[in-house]
Amino acid sequence: MNFRAELIAVGTELLLGNIANTDAQFVSEALSSVGVDVLYHTAVGDNVQRLHSVTDIARRRADLIIYIGGLGPTYDDVTKNIVAQAFGRELVFHPEILEEIRHCFDTVFRRPMPECNRQQACLPAGCEVFHNPVGTAPGCCFEEDGVTVMMLPGVPHECRYMVEHQVLPWLRRRSKQVILSRDIRIFGLSEPQVQELLAPLMNDAVNPSLAPYAKTGEVMLRMTAKGESDAACAELMEPMLQEVRRLLGDYCYGENIAGLEHAVVALLQEKHRTCATAESCTGGLIAKRITDVPGASAVFRGGVVSYTNEVKAAVLGVPQALLDTYGAVSEPVAAAMADGARRITGADLAVSVTGVAGPDRDDRGNEVGTVFVGLSTPEGTCVRHLSLGTGRTRVRITAAHHALDMIRRYLAGLDF
Amino acid sequence: MNFRAELIAVGTELLLGNIANTDAQFVSEALSSVGVDVLYHTAVGDNVQRLHSVTDIARRRADLIIYIGGLGPTYDDVTKNIVAQAFGRELVFHPEILEEIRHCFDTVFRRPMPECNRQQACLPAGCEVFHNPVGTAPGCCFEEDGVTVMMLPGVPHECRYMVEHQVLPWLRRRSKQVILSRDIRIFGLSEPQVQELLAPLMNDAVNPSLAPYAKTGEVMLRMTAKGESDAACAELMEPMLQEVRRLLGDYCYGENIAGLEHAVVALLQEKHRTCATAESCTGGLIAKRITDVPGASAVFRGGVVSYTNEVKAAVLGVPQALLDTYGAVSEPVAAAMADGARRITGADLAVSVTGVAGPDRDDRGNEVGTVFVGLSTPEGTCVRHLSLGTGRTRVRITAAHHALDMIRRYLAGLDF
Repeated sequence: MNFRAELIAVGTELLLGNIANTDAQFVSEALSSVGVDVLYHTAVGDNVQRLHSVTDIARRRADLIIYIGGLGPTYDDVTKNIVAQAFGRELVFHPEILEEIRHCFDTVFRRPMPECNRQQACLPAGCEVFHNPVGTAPGCCFEEDGVTVMMLPGVPHECRYMVEHQVLPWLRRRSKQVILSRDIRIFGLSEPQVQELLAPLMNDAVNPSLAPYAKTGEVMLRMTAKGESDAACAELMEPMLQEVRRLLGDYCYGENIAGLEHAVVALLQEKHRTCATAESCTGGLIAKRITDVPGASAVFRGGVVSYTNEVKAAVLGVPQALLDTYGAVSEPVAAAMADGARRITGADLAVSVTGVAGPDRDDRGNEVGTVFVGLSTPEGTCVRHLSLGTGRTRVRITAAHHALDMIRRYLAGLDF
Repeated sequence: MNFRAELIAVGTELLLGNIANTDAQFVSEALSSVGVDVLYHTAVGDNVQRLHSVTDIARRRADLIIYIGGLGPTYDDVTKNIVAQAFGRELVFHPEILEEIRHCFDTVFRRPMPECNRQQACLPAGCEVFHNPVGTAPGCCFEEDGVTVMMLPGVPHECRYMVEHQVLPWLRRRSKQVILSRDIRIFGLSEPQVQELLAPLMNDAVNPSLAPYAKTGEVMLRMTAKGESDAACAELMEPMLQEVRRLLGDYCYGENIAGLEHAVVALLQEKHRTCATAESCTGGLIAKRITDVPGASAVFRGGVVSYTNEVKAAVLGVPQALLDTYGAVSEPVAAAMADGARRITGADLAVSVTGVAGPDRDDRGNEVGTVFVGLSTPEGTCVRHLSLGTGRTRVRITAAHHALDMIRRYLAGLDF
């Protein structure tokens, strides 16, 4: 059964822009992963008339309607009443759900259950209950008139829990098709360069399909196959994967991983090496990214954020003569920072970044985006000189990518 | 003129869940700020028939339709053609826009403009052009049949730029009503505590309205007034603002600022003080947040990420005896880390964080979420002992909040 789905998010806070509709993203990604085509997202406020109207529209163009949000206990949580009415179902009280809700108040919130939460135990007659062990609003699912209707809570972690534990198993039971996807992560090529390199593959790709996603300073490709089983999908993907890997060469730093820092931590673990950082314009971002990875403590010894020349000299031991002669944003200082970080932390490797993130040029007239990235290793020290253009956040992120890329390439035995 | 708006985001990547519709959030927030009621969000793929169909629906229920995305140069960027067709306008070639696009390739991308970008210079006849100095896709605006139609690029920073520089000024010129809002930032109280404290105010508030927004580890209140002018709105807000400030006391760390790091950098600048950081479990996050603030270089001297005991001892000078006796996650080590960071960087103040972010307990059996935050000042050193619960990311963010809060409270002359 190939559903054509519409998501209807209910909540005035979405229309006021107080929050982003991240539930829709999460649910869409989950539905795509089991082969459901999501054709529309709709968001509407806590408004009876407009919720009726978008329901009428959705019934005409989708056969799976998933409502998200508006299942809370207060008067402005209208979803359940309107949907039940629109699809001609009574709301029925479930004493066992009331017990679940009361249990949640007793054990999680540790306060008496307010009377208004009683109505969360009412659900459309004949529905399948999606129990909610992580919150008070149960979800549900029923079929009416050829349309499958689901209601999910809007609180993001409750919505996710219910999608993973109830919606996806429900859909998998009804689906003959499996979808498998693989994310290919690329650093060192721009999106147009990737497109040019892979154009023949991407244009002809149907199953598997291959599409690029731009991210700040790097590129991601997603390959997606549909088939009867995971194994069948993997077999479909294999020839194209090999071709993509061949064309990208060592610009591809990983598959199905969340970023360069994950590749770096994995390589450090594999090679039994440790690293350290010395950061000026990235201000701690590289250390933060490495320590975002659980388990980083085994391979990351530490770092220095040297935002002043005094700290570069006193803590990292950068010779004052270098700072005076070349300025803080220079190749010799980047090299000395990396060497210093390696020495004082006792790490096997250290990276350094010194540059001008903006908004203004530095006092020596270096343009915004001028960045030196150093790598100190037992075999010597080298520095990349970059011109990263403008945009403080983009410059910082891209400079951090380069530092991580240098560690990766060194550990992988590549040119760096 | 009080618009009833619908946003139509165009892009299959939204329906696949590859990205969240953050443009819709940003545009909605901006529209709300000038009194435009956003009634619907719609997202649809790069599909001619479905884009036509959602356009038909939007024309019947909104008098301001804002299309976001699908203005790129490739064949799957369909928005402009479909919208022009739906509203009966020809596309007209603008040579001056082509020059802008070519200029962008020359100066920003630094490569020749591909032929396909030519069509981005075609816009519906008679429209007002929204120029795009930060990308290649111009936006536009026209009125047809009582409906105002706008098209904006989907790339987030281009969309934001155009909203701020073109859409909002356009709307303000046509509006009789002004909306003014004020964000009140709170650290140290939970959302239920804030609600309890302000319940009478929040329940009765109509104009201005007052609503809480939970953020990780802190709370934000937004007060919003509608009136004939900014001055009229400010006058409406003043009594409630004073009452809110009185009730919150020094838990309120700022108004209309983006976070604790901004309050800290402003206070450091005002008091002519400098600071430094010594971070263990936050791994550079505090330094990163401080250096996110443009101009931080005048007040931030640097920091150390001491992820190992060796770095704590060798770089920060934490006595080995303290590490051996109390362990790295302890009050004496937090104090010695802060003192060390202050000494080696020469900063006036230094904060330190040592704790267990998870996923596992540390080797001395400290629970996940056990965190010590130290503040070293010329008058002495003090340490907060926290139990922040689980969730690696949440523990790290909340610990960083506490470190920044200690600097703020010290500089503001409050208990800390």
